[in-house]
Amino acid sequence: MNNTASKSAVLLIHCPDQKGIVISITEFIFKNGGNILYLDQHVDTERQVFFMRIEWDLHDFVIADGKIGEYFETLVAKRFSMNWQLHFSNEVPRMALFVSKQPHCFYDILARYEAGEWQVEIPLIISNHTDMQTAAERQGIDFVYLPLSAENRAEQEHKQLELLQEYRIDFIVLARYMQILSDNFIDNYPDRIINIHHSFLPAFPGARPYHSAHERGVKIIGATSHYATAELDTGPIIEQDVVRVSHENSVEDMIRKGRDLEKMVLARAVWHHLHHNLLVYENRTVVFE
Amino acid sequence: MNNTASKSAVLLIHCPDQKGIVISITEFIFKNGGNILYLDQHVDTERQVFFMRIEWDLHDFVIADGKIGEYFETLVAKRFSMNWQLHFSNEVPRMALFVSKQPHCFYDILARYEAGEWQVEIPLIISNHTDMQTAAERQGIDFVYLPLSAENRAEQEHKQLELLQEYRIDFIVLARYMQILSDNFIDNYPDRIINIHHSFLPAFPGARPYHSAHERGVKIIGATSHYATAELDTGPIIEQDVVRVSHENSVEDMIRKGRDLEKMVLARAVWHHLHHNLLVYENRTVVFE
Amino acid sequence: MNNTASKSAVLLIHCPDQKGIVISITEFIFKNGGNILYLDQHVDTERQVFFMRIEWDLHDFVIADGKIGEYFETLVAKRFSMNWQLHFSNEVPRMALFVSKQPHCFYDILARYEAGEWQVEIPLIISNHTDMQTAAERQGIDFVYLPLSAENRAEQEHKQLELLQEYRIDFIVLARYMQILSDNFIDNYPDRIINIHHSFLPAFPGARPYHSAHERGVKIIGATSHYATAELDTGPIIEQDVVRVSHENSVEDMIRKGRDLEKMVLARAVWHHLHHNLLVYENRTVVFE
Amino acid sequence: MNNTASKSAVLLIHCPDQKGIVISITEFIFKNGGNILYLDQHVDTERQVFFMRIEWDLHDFVIADGKIGEYFETLVAKRFSMNWQLHFSNEVPRMALFVSKQPHCFYDILARYEAGEWQVEIPLIISNHTDMQTAAERQGIDFVYLPLSAENRAEQEHKQLELLQEYRIDFIVLARYMQILSDNFIDNYPDRIINIHHSFLPAFPGARPYHSAHERGVKIIGATSHYATAELDTGPIIEQDVVRVSHENSVEDMIRKGRDLEKMVLARAVWHHLHHNLLVYENRTVVFE
Repeated sequence: MNNTASKSAVLLIHCPDQKGIVISITEFIFKNGGNILYLDQHVDTERQVFFMRIEWDLHDFVIADGKIGEYFETLVAKRFSMNWQLHFSNEVPRMALFVSKQPHCFYDILARYEAGEWQVEIPLIISNHTDMQTAAERQGIDFVYLPLSAENRAEQEHKQLELLQEYRIDFIVLARYMQILSDNFIDNYPDRIINIHHSFLPAFPGARPYHSAHERGVKIIGATSHYATAELDTGPIIEQDVVRVSHENSVEDMIRKGRDLEKMVLARAVWHHLHHNLLVYENRTVVFE
Repeated sequence: MNNTASKSAVLLIHCPDQKGIVISITEFIFKNGGNILYLDQHVDTERQVFFMRIEWDLHDFVIADGKIGEYFETLVAKRFSMNWQLHFSNEVPRMALFVSKQPHCFYDILARYEAGEWQVEIPLIISNHTDMQTAAERQGIDFVYLPLSAENRAEQEHKQLELLQEYRIDFIVLARYMQILSDNFIDNYPDRIINIHHSFLPAFPGARPYHSAHERGVKIIGATSHYATAELDTGPIIEQDVVRVSHENSVEDMIRKGRDLEKMVLARAVWHHLHHNLLVYENRTVVFE
Repeated sequence: MNNTASKSAVLLIHCPDQKGIVISITEFIFKNGGNILYLDQHVDTERQVFFMRIEWDLHDFVIADGKIGEYFETLVAKRFSMNWQLHFSNEVPRMALFVSKQPHCFYDILARYEAGEWQVEIPLIISNHTDMQTAAERQGIDFVYLPLSAENRAEQEHKQLELLQEYRIDFIVLARYMQILSDNFIDNYPDRIINIHHSFLPAFPGARPYHSAHERGVKIIGATSHYATAELDTGPIIEQDVVRVSHENSVEDMIRKGRDLEKMVLARAVWHHLHHNLLVYENRTVVFE
Repeated sequence: MNNTASKSAVLLIHCPDQKGIVISITEFIFKNGGNILYLDQHVDTERQVFFMRIEWDLHDFVIADGKIGEYFETLVAKRFSMNWQLHFSNEVPRMALFVSKQPHCFYDILARYEAGEWQVEIPLIISNHTDMQTAAERQGIDFVYLPLSAENRAEQEHKQLELLQEYRIDFIVLARYMQILSDNFIDNYPDRIINIHHSFLPAFPGARPYHSAHERGVKIIGATSHYATAELDTGPIIEQDVVRVSHENSVEDMIRKGRDLEKMVLARAVWHHLHHNLLVYENRTVVFE
């Protein structure tokens, strides 16, 4: 990954494959004074889909930031029926954290936030428990307690959505938030809700994966970060990792080892999201690294 | 693992946990002149089951090899309702290889055999195709071609069992043998048929795991070696390993990466089997390393 | 690892190998009413050294906790010239944290401490900078600022040793503490100072391993946790782990990936130390897992 | 990696970074009827060097294969002072294998060759021992025995070079060839001699890395594939991988585990070389994956 002092733009693109796509995009950038820093492109030959991530230096670029999208749509994207996203290196996205009682992923994210590891703003934490309130507040982040029951679920989700709007939230991280979100809620943040599942999906979906893994006698356990979709535990996978276990490991040992895995896998997924390395196509992610 | 020039014995034991098991076993060995080289013991506290692998030098042991089992059963095992196996370091087990058309696991095993990596004898190869005949025969191993169809399955399995008897086969390795064995066949070799499955079980069981993995968009693929049981792909797992894949990997790339994984995972499983490191309990393996 | 509600004891032992060691130890435990939960033993045949970790339930043990050591020394250990340590499962060791300016390992340890992941007390943090003071104090841990220069080094180390005594510290964790400790300091805490080095030792010792790794063009970077010894970066290795890097990774990318690795490797080393899984022999660790 | 039935070309390029490189290359391909299948580009911002791997479909390309190099040099490369290589997907490179007595890497390569895993021709095997002669000849590959001593080294190397010429060898794989090549020999095949070293370089260079690793008490061992250069064990690293070891592993165990690692790491390096994924710059490799 390149690092430059000056501002850069990133385009994430996918479209039906055909001749002339690369040349059109690179021409658009070069002819208007952009210097390409990074270009990763490939064609899914089976599906005949073109994917690209391109990043260029804006120092001498003649189109104003606010106009780049419009120009690109008009001059390039429309012609190739492109799906595209435009991002700028100086953007600071706003993240909301959802958490329940398990602290490990939550603490890890707060520590990274405090250490300045990520270019992000976390103005809001929502929880169905109060366990994390102290930790949230001592870092000066607003903590909203919204307890959930079968009766109040719709009402509380409505409040959550209002809060997300009010705080101008760009994306949500579910840091072991042990509640199922409604389809309606998820539809409001497509490919913008990052979840961590405590198994190597699609193995062991559902609520007690470490118990199932122990029962099955696997030699390796995993964790999976994915974008939440309406169907549980089947959203596009962003990142996975694994750790060895042995017959001597109890379920508790697996949970302990899994905790460390979960927080690392979730952090890597958030990092990729923040760096605009992710593109979703047909329920799978393209991860430009 | 210890290596000693002189001969040693290995006991693999499991039984209901209770006080005095370790002392009884170590007394049996010590009082009869054995020097303990290696002892690995643990208790599954959930199931209250005791597991042990103990290896001792036979140099000054006063009980003759052929009598150790009887004495141990009488003096120790019966009292604790033990399941036990006794092995000697100078045994050379006899392996039969089953193979179809895919060569990678098969070649890998033959290469290890030729290089003398394993203490094993391979007198017999059985296949439902003739592709591997040349490779088998140039290493001087008998190759028996038994083509399979819906009609002749029972008859051919009968022949296989006769061959296994005739060649005094101790255990079978399915080196990507793409045929389902009957329950009867498997019952003849309990915990003695080692299979390799080309996925990270229990994810993607069945016939085309790489296609399913590609479809699901996982970031890691795996391979699983297990003892074959009557129910397909659900036998006790011996060894698993994984490799990273990316969105750029086609199904063919996954198959290529998976091939290397499969042959390593199968080889490690066979090695553990040969070294008497494996014990099966309630469809899970205990792997003493 | 077994988990039992009742109290257990752990013996870590090494001594010259000879016949009768295992039987003597297991007899000592069994005859006095102990139930062995876990036993891991092996012989380094090259050096002829015997190693054991044995854990037993104290529920019906007839020797009082405070007398076990004396009895074991008299009845067993002296005879075999054993080096041994005795630990109890209800002990809560006292850790001091040394930190400089880099927060990632430090925050990770505090998060685990707050979440109750470890059975440990952290009463004291010492730093040559004030950056971590706020984080330390909000968790109610005493923070002592002891700035270091060439002139005051001996004097400040003297104060550190006094503080460690005053706070009854059992072991020290150097959470990226970027100062070299004197031989005298280290001699006060043999095998009780855990350091994290940001490379895959013995590759890239010294101060700027990520720069060296980048320069050399390695494809994998690592982190190493070891007990500090008088000679820098050469103490007994407790734990290591690695992560892949590519030609596209700048030194900054390596530092970022390495941060995550360092905190995991250090945490695993501390966990092993806390669980009495570690034994040091001839500058190498035996890690019972 | 994309696979297409029709023929494609690959350009590997590096040059000083400046504006307009990407557009010039993509224009050259597009305007002449090429369809870009795969493009991976990045800038080393520290060294200000531009790197690219670009692959395009030749189906409608108007420049004849034999002329592409000349046209590209004239129209694009010269202007940007490019270093470039041009490859075609239907080329079958010719590999020579050098081997001594250790069979594992050698057998693994022959097995892949026989199974048709690689698009390569292996017409020649050279060895300073006769151990591998039978295995070589039964696969119909010419085996030349050139024993080496202090006295005949120069003379034998001369013969080797003649053989390599005679057999029109494109690149050499040292499959645990335990002899040091002269500078002159290496100069004849720059970045075309692939070696496997049995350690995680730069840790443990030299002849007995597993002994050194055991002595040092590392928890992970590795293997490194690199292009041979005049200075021993310091050539550009192509691929590395690692495996865990424990205190229970003897040197022999490390050698056994290392064998499997070595053959996999070497095979991956050869695969990358065959697929034109490798570019060498300032003693480091760029690996396009």
